[in-house]
Amino acid sequence: MLIVMTPTATPEDIARVVGAIEALGFKPNPIPGAVRTAIGITGNQGPVDPRVFEALPGVQEAIPVSKPFKLVSRDWKAADSIVTVGEARIGGGHWAVMAGPCGVESLDQALTIAERVKKAGAQIYRAGAFKPRTSPYSFQGLGEEGLKILAKVRSETGLPIVTEAIDADTVSAVEEYADMIQIGARNMQGFSLLKRAGKSKLPVLLKRGLSATIDELLLAAEYIMSEGNPNVVLCERGVRTFADHTRNTLDLSSIPAVKKLSHLPIIADPSHGTGRRDKVAPMARAAMAAGADGLMVEVHHMPEQALSDGFQSLYPDQFDAMMETVRRVRAVLEEFDPTIRGTGR
Amino acid sequence: MLIVMTPTATPEDIARVVGAIEALGFKPNPIPGAVRTAIGITGNQGPVDPRVFEALPGVQEAIPVSKPFKLVSRDWKAADSIVTVGEARIGGGHWAVMAGPCGVESLDQALTIAERVKKAGAQIYRAGAFKPRTSPYSFQGLGEEGLKILAKVRSETGLPIVTEAIDADTVSAVEEYADMIQIGARNMQGFSLLKRAGKSKLPVLLKRGLSATIDELLLAAEYIMSEGNPNVVLCERGVRTFADHTRNTLDLSSIPAVKKLSHLPIIADPSHGTGRRDKVAPMARAAMAAGADGLMVEVHHMPEQALSDGFQSLYPDQFDAMMETVRRVRAVLEEFDPTIRGTGR
Amino acid sequence: MLIVMTPTATPEDIARVVGAIEALGFKPNPIPGAVRTAIGITGNQGPVDPRVFEALPGVQEAIPVSKPFKLVSRDWKAADSIVTVGEARIGGGHWAVMAGPCGVESLDQALTIAERVKKAGAQIYRAGAFKPRTSPYSFQGLGEEGLKILAKVRSETGLPIVTEAIDADTVSAVEEYADMIQIGARNMQGFSLLKRAGKSKLPVLLKRGLSATIDELLLAAEYIMSEGNPNVVLCERGVRTFADHTRNTLDLSSIPAVKKLSHLPIIADPSHGTGRRDKVAPMARAAMAAGADGLMVEVHHMPEQALSDGFQSLYPDQFDAMMETVRRVRAVLEEFDPTIRGTGR
Amino acid sequence: MLIVMTPTATPEDIARVVGAIEALGFKPNPIPGAVRTAIGITGNQGPVDPRVFEALPGVQEAIPVSKPFKLVSRDWKAADSIVTVGEARIGGGHWAVMAGPCGVESLDQALTIAERVKKAGAQIYRAGAFKPRTSPYSFQGLGEEGLKILAKVRSETGLPIVTEAIDADTVSAVEEYADMIQIGARNMQGFSLLKRAGKSKLPVLLKRGLSATIDELLLAAEYIMSEGNPNVVLCERGVRTFADHTRNTLDLSSIPAVKKLSHLPIIADPSHGTGRRDKVAPMARAAMAAGADGLMVEVHHMPEQALSDGFQSLYPDQFDAMMETVRRVRAVLEEFDPTIRGTGR
Repeated sequence: MLIVMTPTATPEDIARVVGAIEALGFKPNPIPGAVRTAIGITGNQGPVDPRVFEALPGVQEAIPVSKPFKLVSRDWKAADSIVTVGEARIGGGHWAVMAGPCGVESLDQALTIAERVKKAGAQIYRAGAFKPRTSPYSFQGLGEEGLKILAKVRSETGLPIVTEAIDADTVSAVEEYADMIQIGARNMQGFSLLKRAGKSKLPVLLKRGLSATIDELLLAAEYIMSEGNPNVVLCERGVRTFADHTRNTLDLSSIPAVKKLSHLPIIADPSHGTGRRDKVAPMARAAMAAGADGLMVEVHHMPEQALSDGFQSLYPDQFDAMMETVRRVRAVLEEFDPTIRGTGR
Repeated sequence: MLIVMTPTATPEDIARVVGAIEALGFKPNPIPGAVRTAIGITGNQGPVDPRVFEALPGVQEAIPVSKPFKLVSRDWKAADSIVTVGEARIGGGHWAVMAGPCGVESLDQALTIAERVKKAGAQIYRAGAFKPRTSPYSFQGLGEEGLKILAKVRSETGLPIVTEAIDADTVSAVEEYADMIQIGARNMQGFSLLKRAGKSKLPVLLKRGLSATIDELLLAAEYIMSEGNPNVVLCERGVRTFADHTRNTLDLSSIPAVKKLSHLPIIADPSHGTGRRDKVAPMARAAMAAGADGLMVEVHHMPEQALSDGFQSLYPDQFDAMMETVRRVRAVLEEFDPTIRGTGR
Repeated sequence: MLIVMTPTATPEDIARVVGAIEALGFKPNPIPGAVRTAIGITGNQGPVDPRVFEALPGVQEAIPVSKPFKLVSRDWKAADSIVTVGEARIGGGHWAVMAGPCGVESLDQALTIAERVKKAGAQIYRAGAFKPRTSPYSFQGLGEEGLKILAKVRSETGLPIVTEAIDADTVSAVEEYADMIQIGARNMQGFSLLKRAGKSKLPVLLKRGLSATIDELLLAAEYIMSEGNPNVVLCERGVRTFADHTRNTLDLSSIPAVKKLSHLPIIADPSHGTGRRDKVAPMARAAMAAGADGLMVEVHHMPEQALSDGFQSLYPDQFDAMMETVRRVRAVLEEFDPTIRGTGR
Repeated sequence: MLIVMTPTATPEDIARVVGAIEALGFKPNPIPGAVRTAIGITGNQGPVDPRVFEALPGVQEAIPVSKPFKLVSRDWKAADSIVTVGEARIGGGHWAVMAGPCGVESLDQALTIAERVKKAGAQIYRAGAFKPRTSPYSFQGLGEEGLKILAKVRSETGLPIVTEAIDADTVSAVEEYADMIQIGARNMQGFSLLKRAGKSKLPVLLKRGLSATIDELLLAAEYIMSEGNPNVVLCERGVRTFADHTRNTLDLSSIPAVKKLSHLPIIADPSHGTGRRDKVAPMARAAMAAGADGLMVEVHHMPEQALSDGFQSLYPDQFDAMMETVRRVRAVLEEFDPTIRGTGR
């Protein structure tokens, strides 16, 4: 923390800030300048709230210096974390694609799609049983019935299941039937849910909120890790901006940014990230080229009849083609980029 | 819903869209133009998902026409709703100020501030017992202990209490001790929480999410109302933008926008909306001038020692001055603006 | 400037940064901490580019401390500047309303509206002769012909004229016929235009760009002032965000923010700031309540026939009502708020 | 255009709208619905301003249907345009990399970097002589002196030159010495500059503004094309959002979006798009994977001494590595993606 005084701050103002720092048990380090004085704070174990100081007379700004997260940080653990979901591994040179429909509609639908995406190379099956919908009048998912269908899909295909939990109760249900707990963008700062997921033995897929900074995303992961669950995969799925040619703006620079700050794997969701079928494959390729540890993609064999988000689902043939290109782009990275460490799959 | 075909769409493409509309039980209304054909949809009771049609060949765009909400709408109920909290009334010409510290810290702190804000004219006391915090290492509130303190503040001062619930469990606790359930910005789309609040007998204060559109805010209120609770007060508290001179960008135009679309009252929170003490009073005045039905303001007698958000809390003297000005601005509106209907207080 | 080193930075890394600071002629002030070292820079006359240091090994961040502007700053000139346009005065306790149509269409149109807005209390007439339009196929204004009409309006009504210049050539034309040069939001960082306006004897109305921070707005004003023209009035006219209920998001907190940092006056444009007629009056009142030194408002006697932006123009009767309320809100501020210094009009 | 009436609109309201449409010479197509009436407009040659109708009683919304651009549109010209700069070709299956320093500093600097980037495979040399800078006190470029240096670099290396013009005067200077006119993000809606560039014989590189939609970018290109210059290359260089881990948010989905709407080539600038050296290579690869027709990249042999933007410039060795990976990613696309048509280089 650095406290910047105004040019007109008096010696008394400076002494008051120095005293306030000492009162918190920290060490003040005044740096007198030509125009103004700044005071560095050292001796603190974690972050200091800047606003304590901004209230004092003569203080212009209090600038935080340390990052506020710990367990998710590369400072804490330098090596890439590898998260295992069934037989799939994500991070540390391993990557995986999670594919499936937006929502479970029936056993027939779920199984048909699962077989197709497995054949194309997806390693994890995704489908929602609990759907958070903007309108109370939209289809809200099949609930526990949907989870039972997903468990059957797993036993038929061998694909592990990732599916969304929307509160503490649904975490328990997901634990009973699935292999990975998804926390959606709207719940990224639902702290009760994060803490409950942190007590689970299942790995967690945590999606970036629509207006979350990278620091906030990492702090949401810190909530999960601080409860004892180290198996967190982050997911870039687009943020909300003024741009209107896609439903959200897929911010792929978050991938190298997260990798610099954290050891956790990060994948991308080009389906929600664009909201437009014809943008999914280009952005899937782009995400892999940016260094993503995998993808989450919506696929439906009859998207025009899907009960939710059909417009952004790929047809199975499109998914086949996407997988082929994505695999080749990944191979280029593994050959050339030193930050892609492992051996892939 | 209007389906716009591409200039090169074939008669077969058009027939396919017409068929899809009929298959959904609606009525297609083709409008052939010089360059392209458009097809209007009528006969639907609620909104149609545009994306069903965007998947079909020859379709350029599907444009929704109707708003997706119902109970919150002025089409449904033309007269302003009035929400009662203790003796305070909000909406329909009545306005109220909710004031207090960000978080309950002790009975002494809570009571000292309550007496001061009551004297200045606040009608409802606000303070958090359950605090949703970005970092797991920040002060998370006193929990039920805090609620008990708030109940004592009410019995001492007579002020009704509004305090935040962060999940279904904490709604029950808030119901036991307080008078109004606050749902915070981060939980605006926590649909389990919304539904639980919709089953409560207490009125609900619903804050706009950091990247929520007005439609999304109204649909979140629709979740509450559709469960049977008609007593919802909306709150503009700033949205997230690129602007960096305030913590959030207080979007005061949401006030007339909500009033046009909905009968629900809307207040503003200039404390979180700016995050800077010296911006609170100007924006409080501005919100009232824009037609807000009240304010939520943070006040602390010793903000530099507050455990959370002290930097944006007004000193009691500043709050006195703010109340005086705000009251006068409101009086101007009541005299001149025909949309401010009731008689105030 | 504060240079923050990584926790793993070596003594050599620190020495290299110290050397780089000295090489620029500044003084390094190392502050060793428990976890990492930070190095303060003093002795610099103006801002230092942080990125010079971010390129060096072991550097985590370089944090700027001083603001990069000078002549526009309150540090430079503590008292409010007052800008005079004809007989109108803006700033330092004086306020004025600029009103008129979006574009000049004919002498009859321009004069009809001018007489109406003058009667309602507007002190400056606004209308565009050179219109920057998003599409090359939209009406681009009457050009010099429009300026001649405006000059006639002035001679008939006595109202001074503010009108937009879009490049260096049109500044000269505006200087010939008008009283104040407007620089539009799209040209806020058109630096050739800013420099040319800085050489003019006319006062300048500088509108905030659609994605400009307050620092960038003030630096654009600094371009004008650094060429010798001290008469700059800033204008908040809305920024671009995800919000879709208004055309732009009017960020009224920029008004107290500018007043804290700068001595220049700032007004608000609720017409462009909302893009919706029914939002103009509420936001005009709100802007005045936030402390604006005036308003710029579009008025048209037949908006449905206007050649540009008719949808956001007030009818003359609506403008009368708006003026009456705005005047009363301003009177409240002048009575109660110590930062509103002058005596108004 | 579709006019949507309110549920309470009277037959008179509808007749008034029908009359207004006819008065403009267009054909009204009323579509009565269960709840409300909508009226389609046909017979118009170009876009209709929706706001004309929103002013009328009983009108809820006026929804534009056609896109407002023409010459840039794929409807107008289906085949990809190929723009030639020296021997480089961009678009229609051809791609090129423009590389060099942010600004020309000296012949020695400019030539050293040019030789290095040519060797690595860059086909066009980029460097600024006229620099638009946020602060008037920052280095503004060498001006015409810089252009003369660039001309020498071309005669020594054979690389064609792209450099920025900031107003009509500097377009003439750029025409004298260089091969392609760059229009920067801040000037994307500087319409005098666009028109002047539209009269040039040189190709134009048009960068997306910081808050420009795709429609606005294409309309800016339409300004250039409508003056007679068909040789426009668009450039995605990041937009302004709340995200703070990069200087701007590089919106790569604009690449497939532009390619769908327009025949013009589009490249990406990962240097300005991220503002961080360590993000440039990942985002360069991602842009090519998304289908970009090339890249613009900042390279400097001594970035820590650069007079502007050194922090985001690649070292020559990093540029070599980037080029190699980018070339391989492109080869994957050319093999697999049917929308990448040509044969590359």
